[in-house]
Amino acid sequence: MKEVYPGILQLIDVMGTFAFTVSGAFAAMERRLDPFGVLIISFVTAVGGGTLRDVLVGDLPVRWLANGTTIGVVFAASVATMLFGSLLKRLDKALFLFDALGLGFFTIVGVEVGINKSLSASICIALGTITACFGGVLRDVLLNKVPLIFHKEIYALACIAGGGFYYALYHLQVPADLAKVGCIFLVFAIRFLAIRYQLALPRFYLKQDS
Amino acid sequence: MKEVYPGILQLIDVMGTFAFTVSGAFAAMERRLDPFGVLIISFVTAVGGGTLRDVLVGDLPVRWLANGTTIGVVFAASVATMLFGSLLKRLDKALFLFDALGLGFFTIVGVEVGINKSLSASICIALGTITACFGGVLRDVLLNKVPLIFHKEIYALACIAGGGFYYALYHLQVPADLAKVGCIFLVFAIRFLAIRYQLALPRFYLKQDS
Amino acid sequence: MKEVYPGILQLIDVMGTFAFTVSGAFAAMERRLDPFGVLIISFVTAVGGGTLRDVLVGDLPVRWLANGTTIGVVFAASVATMLFGSLLKRLDKALFLFDALGLGFFTIVGVEVGINKSLSASICIALGTITACFGGVLRDVLLNKVPLIFHKEIYALACIAGGGFYYALYHLQVPADLAKVGCIFLVFAIRFLAIRYQLALPRFYLKQDS
Repeated sequence: MKEVYPGILQLIDVMGTFAFTVSGAFAAMERRLDPFGVLIISFVTAVGGGTLRDVLVGDLPVRWLANGTTIGVVFAASVATMLFGSLLKRLDKALFLFDALGLGFFTIVGVEVGINKSLSASICIALGTITACFGGVLRDVLLNKVPLIFHKEIYALACIAGGGFYYALYHLQVPADLAKVGCIFLVFAIRFLAIRYQLALPRFYLKQDS
Repeated sequence: MKEVYPGILQLIDVMGTFAFTVSGAFAAMERRLDPFGVLIISFVTAVGGGTLRDVLVGDLPVRWLANGTTIGVVFAASVATMLFGSLLKRLDKALFLFDALGLGFFTIVGVEVGINKSLSASICIALGTITACFGGVLRDVLLNKVPLIFHKEIYALACIAGGGFYYALYHLQVPADLAKVGCIFLVFAIRFLAIRYQLALPRFYLKQDS
Repeated sequence: MKEVYPGILQLIDVMGTFAFTVSGAFAAMERRLDPFGVLIISFVTAVGGGTLRDVLVGDLPVRWLANGTTIGVVFAASVATMLFGSLLKRLDKALFLFDALGLGFFTIVGVEVGINKSLSASICIALGTITACFGGVLRDVLLNKVPLIFHKEIYALACIAGGGFYYALYHLQVPADLAKVGCIFLVFAIRFLAIRYQLALPRFYLKQDS
């Protein structure tokens, strides 16, 4: 079941997993959790989205149970954040880069699961978005916060756009590698612009809140 | 796997899904989430209970992944709530009606899953209650609140009573359509009385809270 | 699928389930939930860890759906806590004993699931820890709290140590019963010392919190 990615995608996988883990570890450390709590939150942040996707479509056991690389990267990144957190915090630009690349990559993984199961376009895109975004949602739920991605800079929308783009390219029979690069680039560009110009979606309010 | 309901039950399914979606969207808008957050919370509220049931019994992929009607109704209802929320808020009696009918209907769907798998009576009723109630529980968890149904007017109890009634009628070999109408009517009646007279269950406290 | 434990392990299973249920019921009563809410939280606390494990590895339907003993114990213990809570509260030493024994027992159940599926050592230990600890995590999430086990006395670490010990003994071909007793004893000893001397893990902070 484990896929063999060409080298560059494998590297992006590791970079994304690293960035997700670090974001989970930072959030847990801000809440003063103990090392075990930090490790769990890191883990959930990194693999939560893929876990939910695998459960929803019935690909069980979930993928990471048999993926030693992911487990190793998460463990190492979580421990490194506990030991060298202040140092890592200064590398915020590298972490943003890793996170944005990982976001695009995980979106592709999710969309492909849907395509392989012949699910509809909207469900494929939803699976991509779930894979990329729900680790962060579970992180925030465990830390007792309203999930960040529901009310901060554009995040999930980048995955929806990237997932839709990849799905379209796939059905236009664009070569897979090119489609992947295109998707990752689009997600990255949206995230870059969202952070650069602090773009958030408009809100809809009720006139008469009860 | 998708069942063919006779017209009236299909209609109740859509009405219930609509009401659940709107309740999710309202709750999310009150927390000032962005449109994507509102959509996600709407979705989780509408399909969360059925998802948990499908996962627990192992009916994977979960049903809504292949159910275009549900996905369409949820999407349309969520967008409509964002655009015309103030208007919908005034239709609170229609929404209560839809919600109460949907509650009975979803209870039946859950009990039937248990019956088809020859599970025990208490588990069948639990599956019905989970199907009908856990979307609201997940909505509240994601919005960082103690689930409403654990401490407000009688809600889950209506499903337990309706589910037990349906299970009994089924085993007394009452015709299926009659049993379904009976269950939906019972759930509706309990909810109507609970709201009308603000009935809540008594609480058990500890004398010496630590 | 249901295993036949020798009498003493079956008894520990029941004692552990009882203690987990009571801890869930107490936590729910402190939040003034209604009886249905108390019952749900009790249930989630008692079976949540095993449910997550079964879902992750794909052992569906989850085990407790067909386990009348567990359902009966949880129901009885939850109702008993609502009726005789103040009395039970005074039995805190017995409850700690039951909880600590159950913790060791549930760890073993989880590790064995991993061993039977030929999963790696770290995943076997993780499954044991999830089985023993995640019911409490879900309890706290539903009650809108940061999970206790992430920031209080050593709890998960006892399961990790016990699970690793059991895994090692198993591969050293120590007789199963002896390995189980050893694991339960080790978990119990760590918990006893942690509570007795209020041992908590050290924290890692960030120098420059943003």
